[in-house]
Amino acid sequence: MKFKRIKSNHVQGILEPESSRKYPFQRLPQKYKNKVRQEVWDLSENSAGVSMSFFTNTSTLVAKWKLKNKFKMHHMTDVAISGLDLYQKRNKCWDFTGAAIPEDLENEVCLFSGLKKKLRHFRIHLPLYNTLISLELGIDADAQLKINYKESDPLIFYGTSITQGGCASRPGLAYTNIISRKLNKTCINLGFSGNGHLEVPIAKILSKINSAFFIIDCMWNIDENIITKNTRPFLSALRSKKENSQTPIIFYEKYVSDINHPDKKQIHSILQENLALKKEINKKIKNGFKKLYVFSQDGCLREDSEFTVDGVHFNDLGFERFAKHFLKNLKKLV
Amino acid sequence: MKFKRIKSNHVQGILEPESSRKYPFQRLPQKYKNKVRQEVWDLSENSAGVSMSFFTNTSTLVAKWKLKNKFKMHHMTDVAISGLDLYQKRNKCWDFTGAAIPEDLENEVCLFSGLKKKLRHFRIHLPLYNTLISLELGIDADAQLKINYKESDPLIFYGTSITQGGCASRPGLAYTNIISRKLNKTCINLGFSGNGHLEVPIAKILSKINSAFFIIDCMWNIDENIITKNTRPFLSALRSKKENSQTPIIFYEKYVSDINHPDKKQIHSILQENLALKKEINKKIKNGFKKLYVFSQDGCLREDSEFTVDGVHFNDLGFERFAKHFLKNLKKLV
Repeated sequence: MKFKRIKSNHVQGILEPESSRKYPFQRLPQKYKNKVRQEVWDLSENSAGVSMSFFTNTSTLVAKWKLKNKFKMHHMTDVAISGLDLYQKRNKCWDFTGAAIPEDLENEVCLFSGLKKKLRHFRIHLPLYNTLISLELGIDADAQLKINYKESDPLIFYGTSITQGGCASRPGLAYTNIISRKLNKTCINLGFSGNGHLEVPIAKILSKINSAFFIIDCMWNIDENIITKNTRPFLSALRSKKENSQTPIIFYEKYVSDINHPDKKQIHSILQENLALKKEINKKIKNGFKKLYVFSQDGCLREDSEFTVDGVHFNDLGFERFAKHFLKNLKKLV
Repeated sequence: MKFKRIKSNHVQGILEPESSRKYPFQRLPQKYKNKVRQEVWDLSENSAGVSMSFFTNTSTLVAKWKLKNKFKMHHMTDVAISGLDLYQKRNKCWDFTGAAIPEDLENEVCLFSGLKKKLRHFRIHLPLYNTLISLELGIDADAQLKINYKESDPLIFYGTSITQGGCASRPGLAYTNIISRKLNKTCINLGFSGNGHLEVPIAKILSKINSAFFIIDCMWNIDENIITKNTRPFLSALRSKKENSQTPIIFYEKYVSDINHPDKKQIHSILQENLALKKEINKKIKNGFKKLYVFSQDGCLREDSEFTVDGVHFNDLGFERFAKHFLKNLKKLV
């Protein structure tokens, strides 16, 4: 068996893979450390939405990974927080093949063994809420491993814990990862748990990216005041680069997880926040801002009330429905 | 605020609620302690599938619960292992309303507050993988709490970790709980993680229950040898009581989580095990055994490969599909 150390420029889902960074799969390059709040920076080190696509003919695949944090959450599994999961491409679809379950800060897990030697196309998703110090993949001594990553126009998601992947059961089921597999497109997950505050410093960083789609999913981290105060400055900063004047920007409404919930105040405040968002967006559109959209939460999740773990964070049912809703709406646009 | 201590005879999902037990929501009464293996007994203390249905007009609801074990699993949330979740009945459906997330061995969590005083019908699901030492519900000092439990012919599920609820994101999403809510029927969950061995001592305990449906879901804990050795003695013991000669008994096949998985040996062995099961069942049927069924795994989960956390244990997608498949098959029978 031989081990290959995975580097920043082998993966998709990070911003500027060629720029220097302290941890190989931190989402932002090091140069932005002092441009964003400390909380955002710390979370940006987590490998949410980062993945690697590769071909190999190995009969056995082992993942060895070192984690930075002993981080736990009561409403999310350790596999999703700190583990990996593997998909194989078959008949143009990505099929889930197995998970590497973390036990401690240093882990070594066999993802499969005893397969016939044959070239296969895999994709491995990295931890959603932890920071990787290193990742190595082990293959048969005589096998090959070929990284397969083609740059495509990325979809950039900026948002909250829900964007970051809370509370999928494993990394591949975060909605940005589902969308990435379904579209065969690069998705960059800039979900910052509790810190999706629609901030200008983030917009400035994003404004430099060419040919992207921006999806803004901050509503669970902001209230009516912040929506009114931040939406327009955020948008101006995001479109500050002339070449990007036509990049599509999509806002998600805040979803109502249970429209008949006995706590009417909460429902009312969600609907008010969505109205406030629309108002700000419409002002921008009236001022000549193009390709700016709001995806309605309506019809997204309504078939039952089973899709969250705690009334807010999606479980796997929620992520499946949310991704489907996004893809349906996106299709209407493009 | 006043607290009501919940007792064994307030809940559904345990065998013989009136019989004495050490922990109020252990699934088997104390008298069976020496009738089953130690491992089965220890797991039987867990409150998997136990729930309480009640009416209250309280504006605030608080749950206080003490746990026996500091038990964690890397591929399951603490909410599912040791927490509670609440449903409200509205328009004849049970809607998820909120979760009580555990922090330690002793927990006190507010499930809702500030509601209008109005009689509502709730159901609370208990931890799937922990043992409760006590449970109290806190309501407004002037509110009423009326336990609402009508005995109905129970569905008894005997099986593995998957039956016990691994790996739902919260208790209410274990498949026996989904089925119980959808049918408005008592379900008793005798899933014993790693220990669903199709054993005669369990069959003897179950044989005493009248007017039940028995659903046997042990395939992930047994191999071809055990299937051949245990199936017929288990069935004979389960039907040893004359009055129960017509109680329906349903076996689940083992499901194939990914029919195109590159590890063909594993798929082949699952299909062989299902054949072995059918062979034993057919022998019984030929000998005059009535109302004995096998629910095929075919068509249950196939729409994609996303429904497990680790290739074996269901996530919430898996449980939703598995429950739906069961209900569809059950409808054909009755």
